[in-house]
Amino acid sequence: MSDDKVMVIFQPSGRRGFVPKGINLIEASRLLGVDIEALCGEKKVCGKCVVRIEEGHFEKYNITSAQSHVSRWQQEEEGKFINEARKKQGYRLACVSKLHGDVLVFVPEESRAGKQIVSKAARDIHIEHDPAVRTYFVTVDKPTFQDPTGDFERVCSALEKEYGIKGLTADIFSLRSLPVALRDGDWSVTVSVWNDKEIIRFRPGRKEGSYGVAIDIGTTTVAGYLCDLRTMEVIDTISLMNPQCKYGEDVMARITFHMTTENGLTRMSDDIVEGLNWLIDQAVKNTHPPRKKVKQPKDYDGPEEFVEAPEKGKTYLRLSRDDIEDITIGCNTAMHHILLQLNPEFVGLAPFPPVLHHSLDIKARDLGIHINPSSYIFVLPIEAGFVGADNVGVLIAEQPYKSLENQLIIDIGTNGELVLGNKFKMISSSCATGPALEGAQIAFGMRAAPGAIERIKIDPETHEVDYKVIGRDAWRSFSQTKDMKAKGICGSGILDVLAELFASGVVSKSGVFAKGLTTKRFRRNPDNNQPEFVLAWAEETSIDKDIVITQKDIRQIQLAKGALYAGCKLMMRRMGLEKVDKVKIAGAFGTHVDRTKALIMGLFPDCEVDKIESVGNAAGDGCRAALLNRRKRNEADWCARNVEYIELTVEKDFQQQFMEAMQLPHMTDEFPHLEGIVRDEILHQQGMGAKVANARGV
Amino acid sequence: MSDDKVMVIFQPSGRRGFVPKGINLIEASRLLGVDIEALCGEKKVCGKCVVRIEEGHFEKYNITSAQSHVSRWQQEEEGKFINEARKKQGYRLACVSKLHGDVLVFVPEESRAGKQIVSKAARDIHIEHDPAVRTYFVTVDKPTFQDPTGDFERVCSALEKEYGIKGLTADIFSLRSLPVALRDGDWSVTVSVWNDKEIIRFRPGRKEGSYGVAIDIGTTTVAGYLCDLRTMEVIDTISLMNPQCKYGEDVMARITFHMTTENGLTRMSDDIVEGLNWLIDQAVKNTHPPRKKVKQPKDYDGPEEFVEAPEKGKTYLRLSRDDIEDITIGCNTAMHHILLQLNPEFVGLAPFPPVLHHSLDIKARDLGIHINPSSYIFVLPIEAGFVGADNVGVLIAEQPYKSLENQLIIDIGTNGELVLGNKFKMISSSCATGPALEGAQIAFGMRAAPGAIERIKIDPETHEVDYKVIGRDAWRSFSQTKDMKAKGICGSGILDVLAELFASGVVSKSGVFAKGLTTKRFRRNPDNNQPEFVLAWAEETSIDKDIVITQKDIRQIQLAKGALYAGCKLMMRRMGLEKVDKVKIAGAFGTHVDRTKALIMGLFPDCEVDKIESVGNAAGDGCRAALLNRRKRNEADWCARNVEYIELTVEKDFQQQFMEAMQLPHMTDEFPHLEGIVRDEILHQQGMGAKVANARGV
Repeated sequence: MSDDKVMVIFQPSGRRGFVPKGINLIEASRLLGVDIEALCGEKKVCGKCVVRIEEGHFEKYNITSAQSHVSRWQQEEEGKFINEARKKQGYRLACVSKLHGDVLVFVPEESRAGKQIVSKAARDIHIEHDPAVRTYFVTVDKPTFQDPTGDFERVCSALEKEYGIKGLTADIFSLRSLPVALRDGDWSVTVSVWNDKEIIRFRPGRKEGSYGVAIDIGTTTVAGYLCDLRTMEVIDTISLMNPQCKYGEDVMARITFHMTTENGLTRMSDDIVEGLNWLIDQAVKNTHPPRKKVKQPKDYDGPEEFVEAPEKGKTYLRLSRDDIEDITIGCNTAMHHILLQLNPEFVGLAPFPPVLHHSLDIKARDLGIHINPSSYIFVLPIEAGFVGADNVGVLIAEQPYKSLENQLIIDIGTNGELVLGNKFKMISSSCATGPALEGAQIAFGMRAAPGAIERIKIDPETHEVDYKVIGRDAWRSFSQTKDMKAKGICGSGILDVLAELFASGVVSKSGVFAKGLTTKRFRRNPDNNQPEFVLAWAEETSIDKDIVITQKDIRQIQLAKGALYAGCKLMMRRMGLEKVDKVKIAGAFGTHVDRTKALIMGLFPDCEVDKIESVGNAAGDGCRAALLNRRKRNEADWCARNVEYIELTVEKDFQQQFMEAMQLPHMTDEFPHLEGIVRDEILHQQGMGAKVANARGV
Repeated sequence: MSDDKVMVIFQPSGRRGFVPKGINLIEASRLLGVDIEALCGEKKVCGKCVVRIEEGHFEKYNITSAQSHVSRWQQEEEGKFINEARKKQGYRLACVSKLHGDVLVFVPEESRAGKQIVSKAARDIHIEHDPAVRTYFVTVDKPTFQDPTGDFERVCSALEKEYGIKGLTADIFSLRSLPVALRDGDWSVTVSVWNDKEIIRFRPGRKEGSYGVAIDIGTTTVAGYLCDLRTMEVIDTISLMNPQCKYGEDVMARITFHMTTENGLTRMSDDIVEGLNWLIDQAVKNTHPPRKKVKQPKDYDGPEEFVEAPEKGKTYLRLSRDDIEDITIGCNTAMHHILLQLNPEFVGLAPFPPVLHHSLDIKARDLGIHINPSSYIFVLPIEAGFVGADNVGVLIAEQPYKSLENQLIIDIGTNGELVLGNKFKMISSSCATGPALEGAQIAFGMRAAPGAIERIKIDPETHEVDYKVIGRDAWRSFSQTKDMKAKGICGSGILDVLAELFASGVVSKSGVFAKGLTTKRFRRNPDNNQPEFVLAWAEETSIDKDIVITQKDIRQIQLAKGALYAGCKLMMRRMGLEKVDKVKIAGAFGTHVDRTKALIMGLFPDCEVDKIESVGNAAGDGCRAALLNRRKRNEADWCARNVEYIELTVEKDFQQQFMEAMQLPHMTDEFPHLEGIVRDEILHQQGMGAKVANARGV
């Protein structure tokens, strides 16, 4: 690359490319199709475009990023928005920072433009009300010389007398507020009790509210549900990208990062904890009225002032972080171990044993999570190395163990997790679908946000393309070119693309581009000579580049669907089933996918179409169930120990099954040239044994 | 005071006085009888004389102390011994720092010369072996594809199979070391289990040692006993001054400090936590061989080097802080609340209710105490606002509740705590003895260290004085003047002085100096015109000053003994007793006091002399019992709730009883002039209601 270009990589989107030296980061983000909030139009006054320049050599991308690779700090402009501590961490205003060398740039959630369409929204599921945290109101007698009993014992007697709760302890942090709370409340207090065991909060007088957050930490996306612990209402749903994405897109990459980088584990843990604190902050902030700038006289030159601007007729809860009294967390095993700083090394090495399966009650403060200081976090239990607490969440939400039907539950995230069973037996397994079905690791893959191609049609004759993007109702064929503003392909569009490419004859059964394609949409990339197919021309996009699907992209999707299909088949064989009664698809993918297309393309084994059900973010639902009903926590532990985990990759004909399942739409012949690809993939799926062994120095 | 003198106050001893401006702090310490370690003789090269200059206005002493009141920092000399962080906290070398203005100087434990005679040494008491922390060794099978169960569950099954322990949880901090410990130990681990409930430590392979520390936090002195949890052996006893002494000598002063000073509570808490960490560090350090400087060639100018110099034939445990797996703490209610940052305000205000009575299990990390990170601290329960966990310690050590005899247990510390009872009933109360009986608040009071007058005789004819100091066997009359090197009067000498002053007719029954004393030892102090009696002339001392006992000193001792005697009497009346069967004196005072003299002087009610027993630091013994036997912890909670606390000051004739009890040796007449003094003292004892109310702004 010539000297007047520099490499920029934006995280967490992973968008990367060479841009002219000297342009600022907002300009670079436009060239690479990354949305950074910039309300003031680069006038350097809104402070919305805060980004972080990462330091270090990033082997994965083969670049060295440094804060010195951007122009000097401008105290006058940047100092207003970025304090000293954040400055030290590498935060800058994107509009001020000009590129002098290669950089890895992290765009924090708050600076990302174009609100994500929350695909992890809360569903209505039936949960019995029995939260782990309950509040009680008591009034006690004042101490006298005749009865100078301590404050705590006074409150305990009242709790026993009025509610029959005995043998309570109190956390030291909550005890610290007791004496003043009792006197401020004129000898009445509201007491929050955890699991009938421990007092975790004292508030003066009678207080009503009690809140919790259920959190689902995905490898790529984190979603949190702020819930009222009394009414079970979901007050708000907040999501963010997992800030660990910058260390690697899949769990194996993060495990390797831990093994090859000093303090890698604590860095990743600190990042997700920071993310969780941001999520909680955001949820709390949203319960307050928005704020607007005070209009000042023209000659005013004091600091900006803000006032609350409540929406008319709306009431606000005005919560503080201390009002969050309970948290439940579900996540896959690697995310679980990284969050808790449990060595994830052996999860990545056959036979992939986790450090523990059991659920955990951990004080939020022990993880550095800022809520009511005495509160606990309930971390859901784990089934196996590659079937984590997120899957346990799915199980307690869907409860296949209460059903006579044979249910196949597919949770497609960055990893695919499968459960098959009924009330008599359940087995689980995992398959390395990779993040392709979520739109990641695809050249123009993106999140389900405005501009993402979500539906597509390809004319079998002309191979012309029609498509639809999120945020615009009209298809391409009914729109002005310039109005499409396409940006990439989201997860739900991926399977559509593959089905259409096959149906229109652009790719063959084995997934390679057909010979003798005459459309100008088919071409070889000038940089790497790889074949690719243009979905949208540069003028239809907002990124001034053709959006293409490459041969490599197709392979990724084939591998994903092949792994999934083969996994399901092998599990059915284990259970002695020819057919399943019901297929439930969990995860964001399920909510968008065309069920018929999925069946035809062979994403999973045959089933009546109307028995295929999308269950949304069932992992998140499970976390919510555990938040609002503590018996679900025991149920989770029971599940984790009673679902039999099966390691598919050691099944004797897994390779054959996998290879067959890669065919489009369904295997009929043999495709010997696929063998190599499948073999590599199996290696990958076996925890990248070689990679991990290598990182261990074995 | 003239301009060429400045006020210096040394803490924690409380020694104070005016010294010439411009002298250094070592010279000032000599003038005021404070021992600061100075091995190099002020050559500024040994770095032993580190002290801390306190900042702020100290109302109690009416001085403003500032780091700028001493000469400038000398980087070359001081930088070698004091790092930047400690420099910022005000640490200096005493030999370098010259006095320019008034200062309050804190002398850290390590800089104090003249080792304290540990009066809180551990006694042999019978304790059944049943520690809360036990270690178990297990070997597990390696995980396989057929059984990829998690590490923790593997260990739990082995523990259940081999030892029958079920349902264990594990602290998150201990879990973090499990995967590596298990593999480093070739699938064998040593597991430390707390109360059959929670795993608090995993160590690779078979490990033997398991240690704990029992800590008794007194208002003035802190003592820690390092114990082997398996053999119950006391490996070491470490003591230090309570670093909070600089905020005030008694509990009321510290409560007031909390109420009148921003962050006063956290400052005091931080200081005692720092002290406890120092104590633990010291205990750990003592299990390693001493280190000596390496002799270098003459022309060597590199940094100093040290090597271990083990004593011949001695084996060393070489513990680390992580080897400390359990701690028990007992202390009075105010110290308890301050340590735990529980608001102590209401303990100082009638009717003195504590925040809680119950014992507490607190993670050491939650208090900032650095031992094995998952370990708990057991904090003994509290009886009442002025009868704390230290008294509960005394009870579980002495077990009067198992006796048919009526036992009177007197624990004389800075506060006097009394228990009277038998196996059928126990009552407790507190009396404000003040710290006089410990040698504090006495003009020349000092700790039981070399140079302290501990025995005294006064000739009834000539009023000449003979005495003995700690560290020298010969009495004054058999010694050279210059050899006595007296420094002050320690607690055990105080009662001797009073008894002799009375017996020799120097003071009257009411405690005032007799009229017409002709000895030159009796005089009026030129500064304040108060009467005083010289015990040792300047030339017999190491402080170049006459050691005197003042009228005020005598009053302090009278108040102490009066409060104690009256308290005992009122308790006996409550129990309907004419006489007690046994008197047990706990605390350092008891080990040194002459029992007969104590009886004659009316320190406590009549009892057969051979039924008076000194039980040493019984509070510390109780902490040790709780450390080595967890059933003692339940016993402690039982005690705290079953001893009836009696507030003496509200008994109807307390004032009369108190006044009578102040007489020497025993009341026969009326002394109306004492009434005022007694009334003031009762106010003081009622928690200094006025002072506290004032601090509250009421």
